[in-house]
Amino acid sequence: MAGLGGSGVPVLASHLDLSLAWGLMGPHLAGVDAAIRAQAASFDPGVVSFVVYACESRGKRLRAALAILTGGAAGEIRPGHTDLAVIVELIHLASLVHDDVMDRAETRRGGPTAGARWGPETAVLLGDCLFAHALKLCTRFDSNVVSRRIADAASDVCQGEILQTRRQFDLSLTEAEYRRLIGMKTGALFAVAAELGAELAGASVEAVAAFREYGARLGLAYQMYDDCLDLVGTEQNTGKTLGTDLEKGKFTLPVLLRLAEAKGGDVDRIRAVLLQGDPIQRCEFIAELHATGCFCRAVAAIREELSAAAALLDAVKPNPYVVALRRLLSAVDGHIGVLAGAGA
Amino acid sequence: MAGLGGSGVPVLASHLDLSLAWGLMGPHLAGVDAAIRAQAASFDPGVVSFVVYACESRGKRLRAALAILTGGAAGEIRPGHTDLAVIVELIHLASLVHDDVMDRAETRRGGPTAGARWGPETAVLLGDCLFAHALKLCTRFDSNVVSRRIADAASDVCQGEILQTRRQFDLSLTEAEYRRLIGMKTGALFAVAAELGAELAGASVEAVAAFREYGARLGLAYQMYDDCLDLVGTEQNTGKTLGTDLEKGKFTLPVLLRLAEAKGGDVDRIRAVLLQGDPIQRCEFIAELHATGCFCRAVAAIREELSAAAALLDAVKPNPYVVALRRLLSAVDGHIGVLAGAGA
Repeated sequence: MAGLGGSGVPVLASHLDLSLAWGLMGPHLAGVDAAIRAQAASFDPGVVSFVVYACESRGKRLRAALAILTGGAAGEIRPGHTDLAVIVELIHLASLVHDDVMDRAETRRGGPTAGARWGPETAVLLGDCLFAHALKLCTRFDSNVVSRRIADAASDVCQGEILQTRRQFDLSLTEAEYRRLIGMKTGALFAVAAELGAELAGASVEAVAAFREYGARLGLAYQMYDDCLDLVGTEQNTGKTLGTDLEKGKFTLPVLLRLAEAKGGDVDRIRAVLLQGDPIQRCEFIAELHATGCFCRAVAAIREELSAAAALLDAVKPNPYVVALRRLLSAVDGHIGVLAGAGA
Repeated sequence: MAGLGGSGVPVLASHLDLSLAWGLMGPHLAGVDAAIRAQAASFDPGVVSFVVYACESRGKRLRAALAILTGGAAGEIRPGHTDLAVIVELIHLASLVHDDVMDRAETRRGGPTAGARWGPETAVLLGDCLFAHALKLCTRFDSNVVSRRIADAASDVCQGEILQTRRQFDLSLTEAEYRRLIGMKTGALFAVAAELGAELAGASVEAVAAFREYGARLGLAYQMYDDCLDLVGTEQNTGKTLGTDLEKGKFTLPVLLRLAEAKGGDVDRIRAVLLQGDPIQRCEFIAELHATGCFCRAVAAIREELSAAAALLDAVKPNPYVVALRRLLSAVDGHIGVLAGAGA
């Protein structure tokens, strides 16, 4: 499945394949897509085309799927689940649009970013629009709970991103701090999607808390996986600009593990590469992450989160949606196997 | 009060003076400031300093004042009014932070912008954080109404900004379109501050609608005034970078009036200045806006909005807060007099 590209960076054969987990999600996700399109059409005529563009860069709809699958796993999927799925997806899209502005990214999912097409001004505002609209949709629910939890999660996402931005090129960043950052940046939205998915299905307080933790752990694992992907993927097979984290001083798990274990002269050498290295030195450092087992230890850490998430499902009465939630974990686990193999 | 600076651009002696309208607002605004500070302190420790910085560039707290004054004018000021004031102020601050990123502005209210201090990445995220936090605060209210109206207004603000950004250097922009743009960009937040201020005070449906319209008209007048200020103020006496709208192709009311009335050779000449003019040609064009009466006609249009807003207060039982709302209009009107004088 994986080989080494000309640059010496391993090439992955495929994206994360979620088709197994998606089995019974088909009609639901079609509904989510239709609902997102309907929402996009509700913007001002002068704004619609931008919103449609941002929403059409579809992606995996992972957060939307989580909202719906937890609904089915915890009880019954209701019309509110589609709204919830659209809400979490819009917030995710808003954060992607702003990420791309900040990264000055040219492409995302194979197409030009909103910023590359219309300039950063429009992209900043487009992100704001998507975000505001998501919070408008929250008020469709009778109770304030959805608005409150979603606003909390959105606030965590933004704060996590600020923290990460401020810690760029910070060699003192610890693994615990990294986990906290990505828990806010990514875990919070996964957690709230699963939590509210269960709550809207009428689950018990205990079940809602368990699904929330499932979401948080899946989100953490997914972000760690995505960060690892940046160290081994290629632009061609992931549809986004890769290998940029190191260049931008974004130190992720394998790097932090190497920093923590390095001794003697290695410490200064690694620090110098991370702070002032050229592309070739960074490429060699990535090879070092594989050779020293740091990459594999990162993969093991991801699998630990996935296992913990799976264990949370043991207490849930089995049904096809619970199976799908397990397959979601397996899909990430399976692709990590490819990553680990790529580094072998 | 006004004279001509060395550049030929009129110099204003003072900012908009709201002290008259602020008479009975003192203790309330102190409460709002304290509440904003308390909210800023509730962010993640790694984020607090950025939020505090954004919130401390205090500004006029015009939207906060509107929320509280309409409360007093429509009934009784309740604890919820302080929350509402903080909410509209945070959304305004979020939009300012993003405006500054988009404009690449270096200073705001006399100090460096968040973007100038910490880079555009942090500034984009900081705006997002403030915005998310405002929507969190909305869920303190038992009912969904505050969340819904605020999210609607925030969505209008962002969409209005996108529309304006997309119409830069667009010579076909009409006065009606300009009014619609700024009605969304600025009017929506003023309108919702006044509307919810009245609603939280227990006003009747009719009174709430009247206060909403008062807010919308004040917001429209205020934005038109602010746009005019950009054509006559100086950085020194307004605390922000001025004269930049023309350079950025942001055509505001006096410019649109001149474009609409121009005939014959003037049309091509003006179009050329607006699209490719140098700073001296733009400066001469501003003088032309004064000489042709377009500036005065813009001032008259602002005063019309202020009069319509004042008329809406006629139906309200007078009390000191109603007087303060009138003084708010007078303060804008009075400063416009200075503007008009500057152009005479």
